[in-house]
Amino acid sequence: MHVLILGGDGYLGWPTAMYFSQRGYEVTVADNYFRRNSCLELDVGMLYPLPSLAERAAIWYRRTGKEIKVVIGDLREAEIMRSLFSGTVSYDWAINKSFTGVPETIVHYAEQPSAPYSLINYKYANTTISNNLLVTNNLMFAVRDFSRDTHIIKLGTMGEYGTPNIDIEEGWLTVRHKGREDTFLFPRQASSLYHTSKIMDTDLMWFGVRMWGLRVTDLMQGPVYGMLTEESGVDERLKTIFNYDEIFGTIINRFIVQAIVGYPLTVYGKGGQTKGVLNINDTLQCVYLAQKHPAESGKLRIYNQIMETFSVNELAELTRRVGVKLGYEVQIEHIENPRVEAEEHYYNPAYHGLLELGVKPHYLTEESMEEMFTVVERYKKNIRRDVIFRGIKW
Amino acid sequence: MHVLILGGDGYLGWPTAMYFSQRGYEVTVADNYFRRNSCLELDVGMLYPLPSLAERAAIWYRRTGKEIKVVIGDLREAEIMRSLFSGTVSYDWAINKSFTGVPETIVHYAEQPSAPYSLINYKYANTTISNNLLVTNNLMFAVRDFSRDTHIIKLGTMGEYGTPNIDIEEGWLTVRHKGREDTFLFPRQASSLYHTSKIMDTDLMWFGVRMWGLRVTDLMQGPVYGMLTEESGVDERLKTIFNYDEIFGTIINRFIVQAIVGYPLTVYGKGGQTKGVLNINDTLQCVYLAQKHPAESGKLRIYNQIMETFSVNELAELTRRVGVKLGYEVQIEHIENPRVEAEEHYYNPAYHGLLELGVKPHYLTEESMEEMFTVVERYKKNIRRDVIFRGIKW
Repeated sequence: MHVLILGGDGYLGWPTAMYFSQRGYEVTVADNYFRRNSCLELDVGMLYPLPSLAERAAIWYRRTGKEIKVVIGDLREAEIMRSLFSGTVSYDWAINKSFTGVPETIVHYAEQPSAPYSLINYKYANTTISNNLLVTNNLMFAVRDFSRDTHIIKLGTMGEYGTPNIDIEEGWLTVRHKGREDTFLFPRQASSLYHTSKIMDTDLMWFGVRMWGLRVTDLMQGPVYGMLTEESGVDERLKTIFNYDEIFGTIINRFIVQAIVGYPLTVYGKGGQTKGVLNINDTLQCVYLAQKHPAESGKLRIYNQIMETFSVNELAELTRRVGVKLGYEVQIEHIENPRVEAEEHYYNPAYHGLLELGVKPHYLTEESMEEMFTVVERYKKNIRRDVIFRGIKW
Repeated sequence: MHVLILGGDGYLGWPTAMYFSQRGYEVTVADNYFRRNSCLELDVGMLYPLPSLAERAAIWYRRTGKEIKVVIGDLREAEIMRSLFSGTVSYDWAINKSFTGVPETIVHYAEQPSAPYSLINYKYANTTISNNLLVTNNLMFAVRDFSRDTHIIKLGTMGEYGTPNIDIEEGWLTVRHKGREDTFLFPRQASSLYHTSKIMDTDLMWFGVRMWGLRVTDLMQGPVYGMLTEESGVDERLKTIFNYDEIFGTIINRFIVQAIVGYPLTVYGKGGQTKGVLNINDTLQCVYLAQKHPAESGKLRIYNQIMETFSVNELAELTRRVGVKLGYEVQIEHIENPRVEAEEHYYNPAYHGLLELGVKPHYLTEESMEEMFTVVERYKKNIRRDVIFRGIKW
């Protein structure tokens, strides 16, 4: 079984590659170093430096004897995407340079993933739209043209739904109107341009599914936290990228770093914003189980990929408690909200589909957060206070 | 009052420019000749040749004394879009080359408008997505950054809604679910990639409206027919572009040409597909009245811009009747449907908003179709049978 991971150098892409490789899959990763290049361009810190993707693959091979083939390229270019299906690909790192064959499963992480990035200014907005839409479109057409039976697992976001005043279902909603009935995509209205680009992705995939009978699983993910996975334990250098800045750092990861360097936890506005979150190990489980149980042909299967919900205030409070227990002085600061969003809202999302597939959640507890503190502490000297918050306004 | 027309060289753009100019508005048009270049690239015929946009503006000026300023440029490039607001624009044709000032109204037609074009292959699919989304995004950010009070009138399409099993409302739907209620964009699911790009446009504009209080009118237009308008009567050379091929020709225009050259009317499949249509003169009225009564700040106002509905079979039958009356032998041929679409479906769209604004519809009758026959007949020798149908498959 051959799994192709688009965006295989990223926060979730690299751990996913190791996870499948460890379980005996043939794995190819493709990436254009968008994330690393952006970290440099925007001058945001990483908690620790990373080996190149080829170097990581080489370390993984030396430690486990398993090959993860590496392609460095920009998937906005249709010919590069198509080479991964046609066999004309040239690998930038591999033990066996011959074509692995058409992938049976594709995990699509190759997107610009940050809300603040998408709203720095019009240039970054355009990059977000063109990157995310063109990569998804190139993927859709490559699967249509070369391999319609291939299962696409695409990462969406819970942010696509926004904060509606009705219960959020898993992707679909049956609507009764004037005595008639039909089932539609659940209404979507996002609060950043990045999240809006993910709505457009869903529009696109839903089109491909209806027109060409594609098999697609769209995972509406919440903010992910954590950095250690079973496979990253094989070698210190295999840990995934860890950002703690406003642009690429996810909320829980950021709060832990802020607590450790004595930077008041930045709660935007009232802090009543509620988020569904999950541990990075649960992302791996979800993607793996989605692969094990593929979507049917002609189905856009949607799961809400969160394990529990917290308000921002609750997350700040939990971080403070753990920090204080570990001897840190932790302040919480409600700052003027740089975003346009509801700071108090109804929020009742369904998320049972992935549990039914067999995911065993890692819940966020004081203990699990304490473990994250101990890893981050080792890199405390690398933390740059000046990049934590820059106040990108919507 | 200054009106900026994006896509001012197109089928609707140029007649709109003359319409506003005739009524005393200051008018600027911007275009990159996408449509003409595509006609050449794809080797599809135009019914008659056209003067350049600058030449048209010069003819219009000589005949009426009114200036339409011309900018030739690709609005995917953010700096070109922004120059139209910042005053750094350089006009490619104008009597007075000084900046007219920030436009109070923008009519946004600058999109790739063809469903078959969007599905020729992956390259044209990418062009459709990147052109339509980047132009809309550049427009949204330019208005946000320079002129939030400017009213954007954007052309959408009835095709965004698809053919749902419930009544189609004007843009919005109130949903009751598990005892709670909220109002959302009416569910959208289009049957071409072009139409899907217009759904994404709507996603984008709805985002801008909520975030920055923009004023947007989104006109969900059906297929337009006709070519003569009051202003085009001023000079023979001011007629708008008229395509009769499968890619850029709209259905009624195509059927008339087919009838005249004895090419059987190509009905896809059963022909029960129902379309809401309108006369080109009604597009002008609709856009003009939307401008006279702008959307409020923070409102995405949506109108369904059709005047009546017909099935494809009814349109073919009407064309046949008129053709036979004028002495043509007209065949109707049900060909295998190259598209993936429902050939019989429920269809009940609301379209009262524009009538309430004061539009006086031109209905499609045997008489109005006869007039179109007489114009097309004059150019019969230009018609190339080989470009009428090429069978682009979905």
